[in-house]
Amino acid sequence: MVGLDPRNESLPNGLRVADSCDLAKIASAYRQFCCGVIDVVASMVPIVKPQAAFFEQIGPLGMQALADVIRHASDRGLLVVLDGKRNDIGSTATAYAQGFLGPGTASPWGSDAMTVSPYLGDDSLEPFVQTAVERSCGVFVLVKTSNPGGKRLQDLIVEGRPMYEHVGELVQQLALRTLGNGGYGAVGSVVGATYPEQLADLRAKMPNCWFLVPGYGAQGAGAADVAGAFDDRGLGAIVNNSRGIIFAHARPEYRQRFGDARWQDAVAAATQEMIEQLRAVLPGVSSGGLAKP
Amino acid sequence: MVGLDPRNESLPNGLRVADSCDLAKIASAYRQFCCGVIDVVASMVPIVKPQAAFFEQIGPLGMQALADVIRHASDRGLLVVLDGKRNDIGSTATAYAQGFLGPGTASPWGSDAMTVSPYLGDDSLEPFVQTAVERSCGVFVLVKTSNPGGKRLQDLIVEGRPMYEHVGELVQQLALRTLGNGGYGAVGSVVGATYPEQLADLRAKMPNCWFLVPGYGAQGAGAADVAGAFDDRGLGAIVNNSRGIIFAHARPEYRQRFGDARWQDAVAAATQEMIEQLRAVLPGVSSGGLAKP
Repeated sequence: MVGLDPRNESLPNGLRVADSCDLAKIASAYRQFCCGVIDVVASMVPIVKPQAAFFEQIGPLGMQALADVIRHASDRGLLVVLDGKRNDIGSTATAYAQGFLGPGTASPWGSDAMTVSPYLGDDSLEPFVQTAVERSCGVFVLVKTSNPGGKRLQDLIVEGRPMYEHVGELVQQLALRTLGNGGYGAVGSVVGATYPEQLADLRAKMPNCWFLVPGYGAQGAGAADVAGAFDDRGLGAIVNNSRGIIFAHARPEYRQRFGDARWQDAVAAATQEMIEQLRAVLPGVSSGGLAKP
Repeated sequence: MVGLDPRNESLPNGLRVADSCDLAKIASAYRQFCCGVIDVVASMVPIVKPQAAFFEQIGPLGMQALADVIRHASDRGLLVVLDGKRNDIGSTATAYAQGFLGPGTASPWGSDAMTVSPYLGDDSLEPFVQTAVERSCGVFVLVKTSNPGGKRLQDLIVEGRPMYEHVGELVQQLALRTLGNGGYGAVGSVVGATYPEQLADLRAKMPNCWFLVPGYGAQGAGAADVAGAFDDRGLGAIVNNSRGIIFAHARPEYRQRFGDARWQDAVAAATQEMIEQLRAVLPGVSSGGLAKP
Protein backbone atom coordinates (compact mmCIF):
# COMPACT_ATOMS: atom_id res chain seq x y z
CA MET A 1 0.00 0.00 0.00
CA VAL A 2 1.26 3.44 -0.92
CA GLY A 3 0.22 6.26 1.41
CA LEU A 4 -0.69 9.56 -0.21
CA ASP A 5 0.42 12.20 2.32
CA PRO A 6 1.01 15.36 0.29
CA ARG A 7 2.90 18.19 2.01
CA ASN A 8 3.67 21.29 0.02
CA GLU A 9 7.15 21.73 1.51
CA SER A 10 8.12 18.18 0.44
CA LEU A 11 6.83 18.28 -3.15
CA PRO A 12 9.42 18.08 -5.94
CA ASN A 13 10.58 21.31 -7.55
CA GLY A 14 8.12 22.30 -10.23
CA LEU A 15 5.15 21.18 -8.13
CA ARG A 16 5.99 22.87 -4.82
CA VAL A 17 4.04 26.13 -4.39
CA ALA A 18 6.18 29.08 -3.28
CA ASP A 19 3.30 31.00 -1.70
CA SER A 20 2.15 28.84 1.22
CA CYS A 21 -1.03 30.95 1.51
CA ASP A 22 -2.20 30.18 -2.04
CA LEU A 23 -4.47 27.28 -1.07
CA ALA A 24 -6.05 26.96 -4.51
CA LYS A 25 -2.64 26.45 -6.08
CA ILE A 26 -1.60 24.00 -3.36
CA ALA A 27 -4.83 22.00 -3.83
CA SER A 28 -4.07 21.84 -7.53
CA ALA A 29 -0.48 20.73 -6.83
CA TYR A 30 -1.70 18.00 -4.45
CA ARG A 31 -4.10 16.73 -7.11
CA GLN A 32 -1.40 16.64 -9.77
CA PHE A 33 1.20 15.09 -7.47
CA CYS A 34 -1.06 12.36 -6.04
CA CYS A 35 -2.47 11.47 -9.45
CA GLY A 36 1.12 11.31 -10.70
CA VAL A 37 2.05 8.88 -7.92
CA ILE A 38 -1.06 6.81 -8.71
CA ASP A 39 -0.12 6.60 -12.40
CA VAL A 40 3.25 5.14 -11.42
CA VAL A 41 2.14 2.67 -8.75
CA ALA A 42 -1.17 1.48 -10.26
CA SER A 43 0.52 -1.44 -11.98
CA MET A 44 2.74 -2.28 -8.99
CA VAL A 45 0.55 -2.28 -5.85
CA PRO A 46 -3.12 -3.02 -5.13
CA ILE A 47 -3.99 -0.18 -2.76
CA VAL A 48 -3.39 3.50 -2.01
CA LYS A 49 -4.16 5.29 1.26
CA PRO A 50 -4.83 9.02 1.05
CA GLN A 51 -4.34 10.74 4.42
CA ALA A 52 -7.36 13.00 4.92
CA ALA A 53 -5.51 15.39 7.26
CA PHE A 54 -3.21 16.83 4.58
CA PHE A 55 -6.11 17.58 2.27
CA GLU A 56 -8.22 19.01 5.11
CA GLN A 57 -5.30 21.18 6.17
CA ILE A 58 -5.77 23.36 3.09
CA GLY A 59 -9.54 23.76 3.44
CA PRO A 60 -12.52 22.96 1.19
CA LEU A 61 -10.44 23.10 -2.01
CA GLY A 62 -8.24 20.39 -0.52
CA MET A 63 -11.31 18.25 0.03
CA GLN A 64 -12.24 18.55 -3.64
CA ALA A 65 -8.69 17.50 -4.52
CA LEU A 66 -9.07 14.51 -2.18
CA ALA A 67 -12.26 13.43 -3.95
CA ASP A 68 -10.55 13.79 -7.34
CA VAL A 69 -7.54 11.76 -6.17
CA ILE A 70 -9.75 8.95 -4.86
CA ARG A 71 -11.65 8.86 -8.14
CA HIS A 72 -8.44 8.77 -10.18
CA ALA A 73 -7.11 5.88 -8.10
CA SER A 74 -10.37 3.94 -8.57
CA ASP A 75 -10.31 4.64 -12.29
CA ARG A 76 -6.79 3.20 -12.44
CA GLY A 77 -8.02 -0.01 -10.78
CA LEU A 78 -6.62 0.65 -7.32
CA LEU A 79 -8.43 0.06 -4.05
CA VAL A 80 -8.58 3.15 -1.84
CA VAL A 81 -8.38 3.17 1.96
CA LEU A 82 -9.20 6.64 3.24
CA ASP A 83 -7.14 7.33 6.35
CA GLY A 84 -9.27 9.70 8.43
CA LYS A 85 -9.49 7.85 11.78
CA ARG A 86 -13.08 8.98 12.09
CA ASN A 87 -15.72 8.03 14.61
CA ASP A 88 -18.63 9.38 16.61
CA ILE A 89 -21.76 8.14 18.37
CA GLY A 90 -24.37 6.06 16.48
CA SER A 91 -26.23 8.20 13.97
CA THR A 92 -23.23 10.48 13.42
CA ALA A 93 -21.00 7.48 12.76
CA THR A 94 -23.56 6.42 10.15
CA ALA A 95 -23.07 9.75 8.39
CA TYR A 96 -19.30 9.17 8.21
CA ALA A 97 -19.73 5.58 7.02
CA GLN A 98 -22.26 6.43 4.34
CA GLY A 99 -20.28 9.43 3.16
CA PHE A 100 -16.95 7.70 2.77
CA LEU A 101 -17.60 4.01 2.09
CA GLY A 102 -18.63 2.88 -1.37
CA PRO A 103 -16.52 3.08 -4.53
CA GLY A 104 -17.62 4.77 -7.73
CA THR A 105 -20.93 6.57 -7.29
CA ALA A 106 -22.02 4.56 -4.21
CA SER A 107 -20.81 7.40 -1.98
CA PRO A 108 -19.67 10.99 -2.59
CA TRP A 109 -16.08 10.22 -1.59
CA GLY A 110 -15.86 6.75 -3.12
CA SER A 111 -13.47 4.90 -0.79
CA ASP A 112 -13.26 1.13 -0.61
CA ALA A 113 -12.31 1.22 3.06
CA MET A 114 -11.56 3.67 5.85
CA THR A 115 -9.76 3.84 9.18
CA VAL A 116 -11.77 4.40 12.37
CA SER A 117 -10.94 5.07 16.03
CA PRO A 118 -12.31 2.73 18.73
CA TYR A 119 -12.49 5.00 21.80
CA LEU A 120 -16.26 5.52 21.51
CA GLY A 121 -16.90 1.79 21.86
CA ASP A 122 -18.72 -1.00 20.07
CA ASP A 123 -21.96 0.81 19.18
CA SER A 124 -19.92 3.51 17.45
CA LEU A 125 -18.24 0.88 15.25
CA GLU A 126 -21.52 -0.79 14.28
CA PRO A 127 -22.60 1.71 11.57
CA PHE A 128 -19.21 1.33 9.86
CA VAL A 129 -19.49 -2.47 9.96
CA GLN A 130 -23.02 -2.43 8.58
CA THR A 131 -22.23 0.00 5.78
CA ALA A 132 -19.05 -1.91 4.91
CA VAL A 133 -21.00 -5.16 4.56
CA GLU A 134 -23.79 -3.54 2.55
CA ARG A 135 -21.36 -1.91 0.13
CA SER A 136 -18.66 -4.62 -0.01
CA CYS A 137 -16.19 -2.32 1.69
CA GLY A 138 -13.78 -2.56 4.59
CA VAL A 139 -13.06 -0.89 7.91
CA PHE A 140 -9.73 -0.72 9.75
CA VAL A 141 -9.98 -0.07 13.49
CA LEU A 142 -6.99 1.44 15.34
CA VAL A 143 -5.64 -1.23 17.69
CA LYS A 144 -1.94 -0.52 18.26
CA THR A 145 -0.58 2.60 16.66
CA SER A 146 2.97 3.20 15.45
CA ASN A 147 3.75 6.40 17.43
CA PRO A 148 5.80 6.34 20.67
CA GLY A 149 2.97 7.93 22.73
CA GLY A 150 0.47 5.32 21.56
CA LYS A 151 1.36 3.26 24.60
CA ARG A 152 0.10 5.93 27.00
CA LEU A 153 -3.44 4.51 26.79
CA GLN A 154 -3.08 1.47 24.55
CA ASP A 155 -0.64 -0.33 26.87
CA LEU A 156 -2.54 0.28 30.12
CA ILE A 157 -3.12 -3.09 31.78
CA VAL A 158 -6.74 -4.25 32.07
CA GLU A 159 -7.35 -7.65 33.65
CA GLY A 160 -3.74 -8.68 33.07
CA ARG A 161 -3.63 -7.69 29.41
CA PRO A 162 -2.88 -4.41 27.64
CA MET A 163 -5.83 -2.29 26.53
CA TYR A 164 -4.99 -2.79 22.85
CA GLU A 165 -5.58 -6.54 23.22
CA HIS A 166 -9.10 -5.83 24.45
CA VAL A 167 -9.65 -3.63 21.40
CA GLY A 168 -8.15 -6.39 19.24
CA GLU A 169 -10.58 -8.90 20.74
CA LEU A 170 -13.51 -6.68 19.80
CA VAL A 171 -12.18 -6.25 16.26
CA GLN A 172 -11.63 -10.01 15.91
CA GLN A 173 -15.29 -10.56 16.89
CA LEU A 174 -16.38 -8.09 14.22
CA ALA A 175 -14.14 -9.82 11.66
CA LEU A 176 -15.70 -13.19 12.45
CA ARG A 177 -19.18 -11.70 11.95
CA THR A 178 -18.22 -10.41 8.52
CA LEU A 179 -16.09 -13.31 7.28
CA GLY A 180 -15.38 -13.60 3.54
CA ASN A 181 -14.24 -16.56 1.42
CA GLY A 182 -10.55 -15.98 2.06
CA GLY A 183 -10.86 -16.39 5.82
CA TYR A 184 -10.74 -12.65 6.55
CA GLY A 185 -13.54 -10.35 7.66
CA ALA A 186 -14.62 -6.92 6.43
CA VAL A 187 -13.31 -5.43 9.68
CA GLY A 188 -9.55 -5.26 10.04
CA SER A 189 -7.19 -3.41 12.32
CA VAL A 190 -4.37 -0.90 12.25
CA VAL A 191 -1.28 -2.34 13.95
CA GLY A 192 1.98 -0.39 13.77
CA ALA A 193 5.12 -1.98 12.34
CA THR A 194 7.19 -0.30 15.02
CA TYR A 195 6.31 -3.06 17.54
CA PRO A 196 7.28 -6.32 15.76
CA GLU A 197 6.73 -8.72 18.70
CA GLN A 198 3.28 -7.33 19.44
CA LEU A 199 2.46 -7.54 15.73
CA ALA A 200 3.17 -11.29 15.64
CA ASP A 201 1.34 -11.83 18.92
CA LEU A 202 -1.74 -9.96 17.65
CA ARG A 203 -1.66 -11.91 14.36
CA ALA A 204 -2.05 -15.11 16.40
CA LYS A 205 -4.87 -13.63 18.49
CA MET A 206 -6.73 -12.05 15.56
CA PRO A 207 -6.57 -14.72 12.86
CA ASN A 208 -9.49 -13.31 10.83
CA CYS A 209 -8.47 -9.64 10.76
CA TRP A 210 -6.69 -7.88 7.96
CA PHE A 211 -3.80 -5.88 9.39
CA LEU A 212 -3.09 -2.45 7.98
CA VAL A 213 0.53 -1.91 9.02
CA PRO A 214 1.89 1.66 9.08
CA GLY A 215 5.39 2.58 10.15
CA TYR A 216 7.37 1.07 7.25
CA GLY A 217 10.11 3.24 5.79
CA ALA A 218 10.28 6.77 7.15
CA GLN A 219 8.99 5.69 10.58
CA GLY A 220 11.84 3.21 10.91
CA ALA A 221 10.41 -0.28 10.41
CA GLY A 222 11.73 -2.66 7.76
CA ALA A 223 10.55 -5.84 6.07
CA ALA A 224 11.71 -8.10 8.91
CA ASP A 225 9.65 -6.04 11.35
CA VAL A 226 6.39 -6.58 9.45
CA ALA A 227 6.84 -10.28 8.63
CA GLY A 228 4.86 -11.25 11.73
CA ALA A 229 1.77 -9.46 10.44
CA PHE A 230 1.27 -12.01 7.65
CA ASP A 231 -0.30 -15.44 7.99
CA ASP A 232 1.37 -18.73 6.96
CA ARG A 233 0.29 -18.15 3.36
CA GLY A 234 1.94 -14.72 3.26
CA LEU A 235 -1.49 -13.06 3.29
CA GLY A 236 -3.58 -10.99 5.69
CA ALA A 237 -1.47 -7.84 5.95
CA ILE A 238 -1.25 -4.59 4.02
CA VAL A 239 2.02 -2.76 4.61
CA ASN A 240 1.89 0.98 4.11
CA ASN A 241 4.73 3.22 3.04
CA SER A 242 3.98 6.89 2.56
CA ARG A 243 6.91 9.31 2.65
CA GLY A 244 9.49 6.64 1.75
CA ILE A 245 7.79 6.21 -1.61
CA ILE A 246 6.05 9.44 -2.55
CA PHE A 247 8.99 11.62 -1.53
CA ALA A 248 11.62 9.14 -2.73
CA HIS A 249 13.17 11.89 -4.88
CA ALA A 250 14.50 13.41 -1.64
CA ARG A 251 16.03 10.19 -0.30
CA PRO A 252 19.85 10.26 -0.53
CA GLU A 253 19.98 7.02 -2.58
CA TYR A 254 17.61 8.37 -5.24
CA ARG A 255 18.32 12.10 -5.20
CA GLN A 256 21.50 11.80 -7.26
CA ARG A 257 20.07 9.21 -9.63
CA PHE A 258 16.78 10.94 -10.47
CA GLY A 259 16.68 14.46 -9.04
CA ASP A 260 13.44 16.37 -8.67
CA ALA A 261 12.64 16.33 -12.37
CA ARG A 262 12.39 12.53 -12.50
CA TRP A 263 10.49 12.20 -9.21
CA GLN A 264 8.11 9.66 -10.72
CA ASP A 265 11.03 7.38 -11.57
CA ALA A 266 12.09 7.67 -7.93
CA VAL A 267 8.56 6.64 -6.86
CA ALA A 268 8.74 3.59 -9.14
CA ALA A 269 12.19 2.59 -7.87
CA ALA A 270 11.21 2.98 -4.21
CA THR A 271 8.03 0.97 -4.73
CA GLN A 272 9.94 -1.78 -6.49
CA GLU A 273 12.50 -1.79 -3.70
CA MET A 274 9.80 -2.21 -1.04
CA ILE A 275 8.12 -5.03 -2.98
CA GLU A 276 11.43 -6.88 -3.17
CA GLN A 277 12.15 -6.32 0.51
CA LEU A 278 8.75 -7.70 1.46
CA ARG A 279 9.02 -10.60 -0.96
CA ALA A 280 12.30 -11.64 0.62
CA VAL A 281 10.75 -12.14 4.06
CA LEU A 282 7.45 -13.71 2.92
CA PRO A 283 7.86 -17.36 2.01
CA GLY A 284 4.25 -17.66 0.87
CA VAL A 285 4.56 -15.01 -1.82
CA SER A 286 5.03 -16.18 -5.42
CA SER A 287 7.86 -14.85 -7.50
CA GLY A 288 5.32 -13.09 -9.70
CA GLY A 289 4.87 -10.34 -7.14
CA LEU A 290 2.48 -9.52 -4.34
CA ALA A 291 -1.09 -10.65 -5.02
CA LYS A 292 -3.69 -8.23 -6.34
CA PRO A 293 -6.95 -8.82 -4.48
CA MET B 1 -23.96 25.68 22.91
CA VAL B 2 -26.11 24.88 19.91
CA GLY B 3 -25.04 21.89 17.83
CA LEU B 4 -25.35 22.24 14.06
CA ASP B 5 -26.15 18.69 12.87
CA PRO B 6 -27.97 19.15 9.56
CA ARG B 7 -29.77 16.09 8.16
CA ASN B 8 -31.74 16.49 4.99
CA GLU B 9 -34.60 14.26 6.13
CA SER B 10 -35.13 16.41 9.26
CA LEU B 11 -35.04 19.84 7.63
CA PRO B 12 -38.25 21.88 7.67
CA ASN B 13 -40.48 21.79 4.61
CA GLY B 14 -39.25 24.32 2.13
CA LEU B 15 -35.61 23.52 2.89
CA ARG B 16 -35.73 19.71 2.69
CA VAL B 17 -34.44 18.44 -0.68
CA ALA B 18 -36.70 15.82 -2.29
CA ASP B 19 -33.95 14.24 -4.38
CA SER B 20 -31.53 12.75 -1.85
CA CYS B 21 -28.92 12.31 -4.62
CA ASP B 22 -28.78 16.02 -5.43
CA LEU B 23 -25.77 16.77 -3.24
CA ALA B 24 -25.30 20.32 -4.56
CA LYS B 25 -28.83 21.20 -3.56
CA ILE B 26 -28.46 19.53 -0.16
CA ALA B 27 -25.20 21.41 0.49
CA SER B 28 -27.00 24.63 -0.34
CA ALA B 29 -29.89 23.69 1.99
CA TYR B 30 -27.46 22.90 4.84
CA ARG B 31 -25.78 26.28 4.37
CA GLN B 32 -29.09 28.13 4.40
CA PHE B 33 -30.47 26.15 7.33
CA CYS B 34 -27.38 26.42 9.55
CA CYS B 35 -26.93 30.12 8.81
CA GLY B 36 -30.62 30.55 9.65
CA VAL B 37 -30.11 28.84 13.01
CA ILE B 38 -27.04 31.00 13.66
CA ASP B 39 -29.00 34.20 12.93
CA VAL B 40 -31.53 33.20 15.60
CA VAL B 41 -29.18 32.01 18.34
CA ALA B 42 -26.32 34.52 17.89
CA SER B 43 -27.83 36.87 20.47
CA MET B 44 -28.80 34.07 22.88
CA VAL B 45 -25.80 31.71 23.23
CA PRO B 46 -22.01 32.13 23.01
CA ILE B 47 -21.06 29.06 20.95
CA VAL B 48 -22.15 26.80 18.09
CA LYS B 49 -20.77 23.35 17.31
CA PRO B 50 -21.00 22.19 13.68
CA GLN B 51 -20.79 18.40 13.41
CA ALA B 52 -18.31 17.67 10.60
CA ALA B 53 -19.81 14.25 9.80
CA PHE B 54 -23.05 15.60 8.36
CA PHE B 55 -21.22 17.97 6.04
CA GLU B 56 -18.68 15.31 5.03
CA GLN B 57 -21.52 12.88 4.33
CA ILE B 58 -22.47 14.88 1.23
CA GLY B 59 -18.95 15.19 -0.18
CA PRO B 60 -16.71 18.14 -1.09
CA LEU B 61 -19.65 20.51 -1.62
CA GLY B 62 -20.67 19.79 1.95
CA MET B 63 -17.20 20.79 3.13
CA GLN B 64 -17.53 24.13 1.35
CA ALA B 65 -20.89 24.60 3.10
CA LEU B 66 -19.20 23.79 6.44
CA ALA B 67 -16.55 26.45 5.85
CA ASP B 68 -19.26 28.98 4.94
CA VAL B 69 -21.27 28.12 8.06
CA ILE B 70 -18.23 28.52 10.33
CA ARG B 71 -17.44 31.88 8.76
CA HIS B 72 -21.04 33.07 9.15
CA ALA B 73 -21.04 32.09 12.83
CA SER B 74 -17.76 33.95 13.41
CA ASP B 75 -19.09 36.98 11.60
CA ARG B 76 -22.10 36.94 13.93
CA GLY B 77 -19.82 36.99 16.96
CA LEU B 78 -20.18 33.35 17.93
CA LEU B 79 -17.37 31.04 18.96
CA VAL B 80 -17.19 27.87 16.86
CA VAL B 81 -16.21 24.42 18.14
CA LEU B 82 -15.78 22.08 15.20
CA ASP B 83 -16.87 18.60 16.23
CA GLY B 84 -14.77 16.24 14.11
CA LYS B 85 -13.19 14.02 16.79
CA ARG B 86 -9.96 14.02 14.77
CA ASN B 87 -6.56 12.70 15.63
CA ASP B 88 -3.50 10.96 14.18
CA ILE B 89 0.18 10.55 14.90
CA GLY B 90 2.45 13.59 15.35
CA SER B 91 3.00 15.38 12.07
CA THR B 92 -0.43 14.35 10.76
CA ALA B 93 -2.11 15.67 13.91
CA THR B 94 -0.29 18.95 13.23
CA ALA B 95 -1.99 19.10 9.83
CA TYR B 96 -5.42 18.73 11.45
CA ALA B 97 -4.63 21.29 14.14
CA GLN B 98 -3.26 23.88 11.73
CA GLY B 99 -6.11 23.33 9.27
CA PHE B 100 -8.95 23.68 11.73
CA LEU B 101 -7.78 25.89 14.61
CA GLY B 102 -7.67 29.64 14.18
CA PRO B 103 -10.63 31.94 13.62
CA GLY B 104 -10.93 34.36 10.73
CA THR B 105 -8.10 33.95 8.25
CA ALA B 106 -5.73 32.24 10.71
CA SER B 107 -6.76 28.86 9.27
CA PRO B 108 -8.72 27.74 6.21
CA TRP B 109 -11.62 26.41 8.32
CA GLY B 110 -11.56 29.10 11.00
CA SER B 111 -12.70 27.25 14.14
CA ASP B 112 -12.06 28.53 17.64
CA ALA B 113 -11.83 25.02 19.04
CA MET B 114 -12.17 21.39 17.97
CA THR B 115 -12.87 17.98 19.47
CA VAL B 116 -10.14 15.31 19.37
CA SER B 117 -9.92 11.62 20.22
CA PRO B 118 -7.35 10.42 22.79
CA TYR B 119 -6.71 6.80 21.69
CA LEU B 120 -3.40 7.64 19.95
CA GLY B 121 -1.93 8.93 23.20
CA ASP B 122 -0.23 12.01 24.57
CA ASP B 123 2.15 12.75 21.69
CA SER B 124 -0.84 12.82 19.33
CA LEU B 125 -2.53 15.48 21.48
CA GLU B 126 0.58 17.67 21.66
CA PRO B 127 0.23 19.35 18.21
CA PHE B 128 -3.36 20.32 19.03
CA VAL B 129 -2.30 21.79 22.39
CA GLN B 130 0.56 23.74 20.81
CA THR B 131 -1.54 25.12 17.97
CA ALA B 132 -4.36 26.00 20.38
CA VAL B 133 -1.99 27.99 22.58
CA GLU B 134 -0.33 29.73 19.62
CA ARG B 135 -3.65 30.76 18.11
CA SER B 136 -5.66 31.41 21.33
CA CYS B 137 -7.91 28.46 20.57
CA GLY B 138 -9.24 25.45 22.48
CA VAL B 139 -9.21 21.66 22.27
CA PHE B 140 -11.77 19.27 23.74
CA VAL B 141 -10.54 15.72 24.29
CA LEU B 142 -13.05 12.85 24.46
CA VAL B 143 -13.05 11.52 28.02
CA LYS B 144 -16.46 9.96 28.72
CA THR B 145 -18.85 9.87 25.79
CA SER B 146 -22.65 9.97 25.96
CA ASN B 147 -23.42 6.78 23.99
CA PRO B 148 -24.32 3.48 25.73
CA GLY B 149 -21.42 1.60 24.10
CA GLY B 150 -18.90 4.20 25.28
CA LYS B 151 -18.38 2.12 28.40
CA ARG B 152 -17.00 -0.83 26.41
CA LEU B 153 -13.50 0.66 26.52
CA GLN B 154 -13.88 3.80 28.63
CA ASP B 155 -15.07 1.91 31.72
CA LEU B 156 -12.44 -0.83 31.67
CA ILE B 157 -10.69 -0.86 35.05
CA VAL B 158 -7.00 0.08 35.07
CA GLU B 159 -5.23 0.14 38.45
CA GLY B 160 -8.54 0.32 40.26
CA ARG B 161 -10.00 3.19 38.24
CA PRO B 162 -11.92 3.31 34.96
CA MET B 163 -9.95 4.05 31.80
CA TYR B 164 -11.76 7.39 31.30
CA GLU B 165 -10.32 8.66 34.59
CA HIS B 166 -6.82 8.00 33.28
CA VAL B 167 -7.69 9.99 30.17
CA GLY B 168 -9.18 12.69 32.39
CA GLU B 169 -5.96 12.86 34.38
CA LEU B 170 -3.97 13.41 31.19
CA VAL B 171 -6.37 16.15 30.07
CA GLN B 172 -6.20 17.83 33.50
CA GLN B 173 -2.39 17.92 33.18
CA LEU B 174 -2.71 19.56 29.75
CA ALA B 175 -5.22 22.07 31.16
CA LEU B 176 -2.81 23.01 33.96
CA ARG B 177 -0.05 23.59 31.41
CA THR B 178 -2.27 25.98 29.42
CA LEU B 179 -4.03 27.77 32.25
CA GLY B 180 -5.78 31.09 31.53
CA ASN B 181 -6.89 33.91 33.83
CA GLY B 182 -10.24 32.33 34.67
CA GLY B 183 -8.73 29.19 36.15
CA TYR B 184 -9.37 27.05 33.10
CA GLY B 185 -6.89 25.73 30.53
CA ALA B 186 -6.98 25.71 26.72
CA VAL B 187 -7.52 21.93 26.83
CA GLY B 188 -10.93 20.75 27.95
CA SER B 189 -12.80 17.49 27.78
CA VAL B 190 -15.96 15.99 26.35
CA VAL B 191 -18.01 14.39 29.14
CA GLY B 192 -21.50 13.11 28.34
CA ALA B 193 -24.53 14.37 30.25
CA THR B 194 -25.99 10.88 30.28
CA TYR B 195 -23.84 9.88 33.28
CA PRO B 196 -24.58 12.59 35.91
CA GLU B 197 -22.69 11.01 38.85
CA GLN B 198 -19.55 10.51 36.80
CA LEU B 199 -19.88 14.08 35.52
CA ALA B 200 -19.78 15.51 39.06
CA ASP B 201 -16.98 13.17 40.06
CA LEU B 202 -14.88 14.20 37.03
CA ARG B 203 -15.56 17.89 37.73
CA ALA B 204 -13.91 17.40 41.15
CA LYS B 205 -10.96 15.53 39.62
CA MET B 206 -10.46 17.92 36.68
CA PRO B 207 -10.88 21.36 38.26
CA ASN B 208 -9.08 23.23 35.45
CA CYS B 209 -10.79 21.64 32.44
CA TRP B 210 -13.67 23.08 30.49
CA PHE B 211 -16.34 20.39 30.06
CA LEU B 212 -18.13 20.16 26.74
CA VAL B 213 -21.29 18.26 27.71
CA PRO B 214 -23.28 16.54 24.95
CA GLY B 215 -26.41 14.46 25.54
CA TYR B 216 -28.81 17.24 26.56
CA GLY B 217 -32.26 17.11 24.99
CA ALA B 218 -32.74 14.47 22.33
CA GLN B 219 -30.25 12.11 24.02
CA GLY B 220 -32.29 12.18 27.22
CA ALA B 221 -30.39 14.32 29.72
CA GLY B 222 -31.95 17.38 31.40
CA ALA B 223 -30.68 20.38 33.35
CA ALA B 224 -30.43 18.48 36.64
CA ASP B 225 -28.20 15.91 34.96
CA VAL B 226 -25.66 18.52 33.82
CA ALA B 227 -25.55 20.61 37.01
CA GLY B 228 -22.57 18.64 38.27
CA ALA B 229 -20.47 19.71 35.31
CA PHE B 230 -20.32 23.32 36.54
CA ASP B 231 -18.07 24.70 39.25
CA ASP B 232 -19.25 26.57 42.37
CA ARG B 233 -19.47 29.80 40.37
CA GLY B 234 -21.74 28.20 37.74
CA LEU B 235 -18.88 28.21 35.22
CA GLY B 236 -16.63 25.68 33.50
CA ALA B 237 -19.15 23.77 31.42
CA ILE B 238 -20.61 24.16 27.94
CA VAL B 239 -23.84 22.23 27.50
CA ASN B 240 -24.65 21.23 23.95
CA ASN B 241 -28.08 20.70 22.46
CA SER B 242 -28.30 19.84 18.79
CA ARG B 243 -31.49 18.20 17.55
CA GLY B 244 -33.63 19.51 20.43
CA ILE B 245 -32.97 23.05 19.20
CA ILE B 246 -32.30 22.98 15.47
CA PHE B 247 -35.18 20.58 14.76
CA ALA B 248 -37.48 22.09 17.41
CA HIS B 249 -40.14 22.59 14.71
CA ALA B 250 -40.69 18.82 14.81
CA ARG B 251 -41.05 18.58 18.61
CA PRO B 252 -44.69 17.98 19.65
CA GLU B 253 -44.76 21.06 21.91
CA TYR B 254 -43.64 23.39 19.11
CA ARG B 255 -45.06 21.73 16.01
CA GLN B 256 -48.59 23.04 16.57
CA ARG B 257 -47.46 26.48 17.68
CA PHE B 258 -45.01 27.24 14.87
CA GLY B 259 -45.21 24.59 12.15
CA ASP B 260 -42.47 24.16 9.55
CA ALA B 261 -42.86 27.67 8.14
CA ARG B 262 -41.90 29.32 11.44
CA TRP B 263 -39.05 26.92 12.20
CA GLN B 264 -36.77 29.77 13.26
CA ASP B 265 -39.28 30.82 15.92
CA ALA B 266 -39.22 27.23 17.17
CA VAL B 267 -35.39 27.41 17.35
CA ALA B 268 -35.64 30.63 19.40
CA ALA B 269 -38.25 29.16 21.76
CA ALA B 270 -36.30 25.94 22.31
CA THR B 271 -33.08 27.87 22.96
CA GLN B 272 -34.82 30.14 25.44
CA GLU B 273 -36.36 27.10 27.15
CA MET B 274 -32.94 25.46 27.56
CA ILE B 275 -31.39 28.66 28.93
CA GLU B 276 -34.15 28.88 31.54
CA GLN B 277 -33.81 25.21 32.46
CA LEU B 278 -30.06 25.63 32.96
CA ARG B 279 -30.46 28.88 34.86
CA ALA B 280 -32.81 27.18 37.31
CA VAL B 281 -30.19 24.64 38.39
CA LEU B 282 -27.18 26.98 38.39
CA PRO B 283 -27.05 29.16 41.49
CA GLY B 284 -24.00 31.03 40.27
CA VAL B 285 -25.65 32.36 37.12
CA SER B 286 -26.93 35.92 37.18
CA SER B 287 -30.49 36.68 36.16
CA GLY B 288 -29.13 38.48 33.11
CA GLY B 289 -28.54 35.21 31.28
CA LEU B 290 -25.65 32.86 30.73
CA ALA B 291 -22.33 34.61 30.46
CA LYS B 292 -20.80 35.40 27.10
CA PRO B 293 -17.06 34.63 27.24
